[in-house]
Amino acid sequence: MNGTLFERWMAEGSVSIPNMLVKTYKKIGLTDNECMLFIQLHVFVESGNYFPTPVELSERMSASSNDVSSMLRSLIGRGVLGMDQYEDKEKGVYFEAYTLQPLWNRLLQCLKEEEQIQKEVQKENQEQ
Amino acid sequence: MNGTLFERWMAEGSVSIPNMLVKTYKKIGLTDNECMLFIQLHVFVESGNYFPTPVELSERMSASSNDVSSMLRSLIGRGVLGMDQYEDKEKGVYFEAYTLQPLWNRLLQCLKEEEQIQKEVQKENQEQ
Amino acid sequence: MNGTLFERWMAEGSVSIPNMLVKTYKKIGLTDNECMLFIQLHVFVESGNYFPTPVELSERMSASSNDVSSMLRSLIGRGVLGMDQYEDKEKGVYFEAYTLQPLWNRLLQCLKEEEQIQKEVQKENQEQ
Amino acid sequence: MNGTLFERWMAEGSVSIPNMLVKTYKKIGLTDNECMLFIQLHVFVESGNYFPTPVELSERMSASSNDVSSMLRSLIGRGVLGMDQYEDKEKGVYFEAYTLQPLWNRLLQCLKEEEQIQKEVQKENQEQ
Repeated sequence: MNGTLFERWMAEGSVSIPNMLVKTYKKIGLTDNECMLFIQLHVFVESGNYFPTPVELSERMSASSNDVSSMLRSLIGRGVLGMDQYEDKEKGVYFEAYTLQPLWNRLLQCLKEEEQIQKEVQKENQEQ
Repeated sequence: MNGTLFERWMAEGSVSIPNMLVKTYKKIGLTDNECMLFIQLHVFVESGNYFPTPVELSERMSASSNDVSSMLRSLIGRGVLGMDQYEDKEKGVYFEAYTLQPLWNRLLQCLKEEEQIQKEVQKENQEQ
Repeated sequence: MNGTLFERWMAEGSVSIPNMLVKTYKKIGLTDNECMLFIQLHVFVESGNYFPTPVELSERMSASSNDVSSMLRSLIGRGVLGMDQYEDKEKGVYFEAYTLQPLWNRLLQCLKEEEQIQKEVQKENQEQ
Repeated sequence: MNGTLFERWMAEGSVSIPNMLVKTYKKIGLTDNECMLFIQLHVFVESGNYFPTPVELSERMSASSNDVSSMLRSLIGRGVLGMDQYEDKEKGVYFEAYTLQPLWNRLLQCLKEEEQIQKEVQKENQEQ
């Protein structure tokens, strides 16, 4: 291994994933494959490609492009993946973009529900 | 949402994943599920649990604990997941620990092979 | 460079820092040195050392341990660095721990104030 | 705090910093301010601004734009900050870009030297 190889590794960089996603995706009804798709979308969006195609996604995944299409439709239908419109002011055009905000909100909601359950349990314990 | 909820979100923290893993796991023969399992292992290890059980892992995954056991055995058999022994000096005991080093080395190897292919293509183009 | 060196680099890992900290610490009155000290504290806390001493911190910083002591006192006095007590249940003892929650809350507050200013500007523009 | 505020926090994202930088910058002769400047550069580069001006940098730092200019010159002179030329193929122009590769290489070199010292110490101990 030479310096250049290490340099290329470093140039690829790293992505930050909230631990809440990894720990809690099951509780909000996502499968392992769907979480992996979200992480792929996150990496594409962070690198400036806001609307990767199913083909682009499936090139990095074991799921086929058809599977990826189905999963994307399902995630949007269930309200965990969002779509926004952005304006590229330089070029004067609008373009579609995926947004993971519904996912983060759902995970935060999950944290809120856990908190309420804990409070009720504490209340019941005190009343006994 | 109150301050406390945001505080709990922040206390959960984030994990750094090398982009090379997300972009290249397919090329080294991993499925989407297996990559998700590696990310789960990474989060457990970073939080100080070096040897999570299949049950602990499956509590956060849609895969069953049996599926997780099979995947772990397969990954170890294929040489992408490693196992080490650590000594807890305070308690004077040895314990098992998963290590993702074989995975990082494989991904680096993949980068090296890409580089060699590019060099050969460039050489062929120059010779023509 | 050999594999072992790359393995040691990977074993050191990475830390996730909210971009809001890097972009906004000046606005909440922190100096470059103080932000660097917060990042050092974050890395210590993430690695399981919740209460690094000024000497431990200064071993990684150009600031002297006296400078670090002064900065820590000042940050606590200004309410951006917090201190908590944790119970080590195995050993049955309490220990001190730094917490960065006041910092995250301050940065969130800063985001809120920016939002309110933007709304007022928009309102004024519409009224004209 | 409402959902929107949390959404804006999440939209700002996080940056991954190698722990080796935070733990070892002192050993390679960087001050706390210089490390903070590197982290600022890293965040700008990750967000697609490859050549932030001293004014842009000083807007987020307690250092003045003159101080930032001096530090940039000094870091380039000492060989820890690099400059590259990139071609924007869409626009057909070349532009300057900072690169942190010399920094990563220096930190890796530092790891190598530590390793050699450890080996020599072990060898001496065995010979006694």
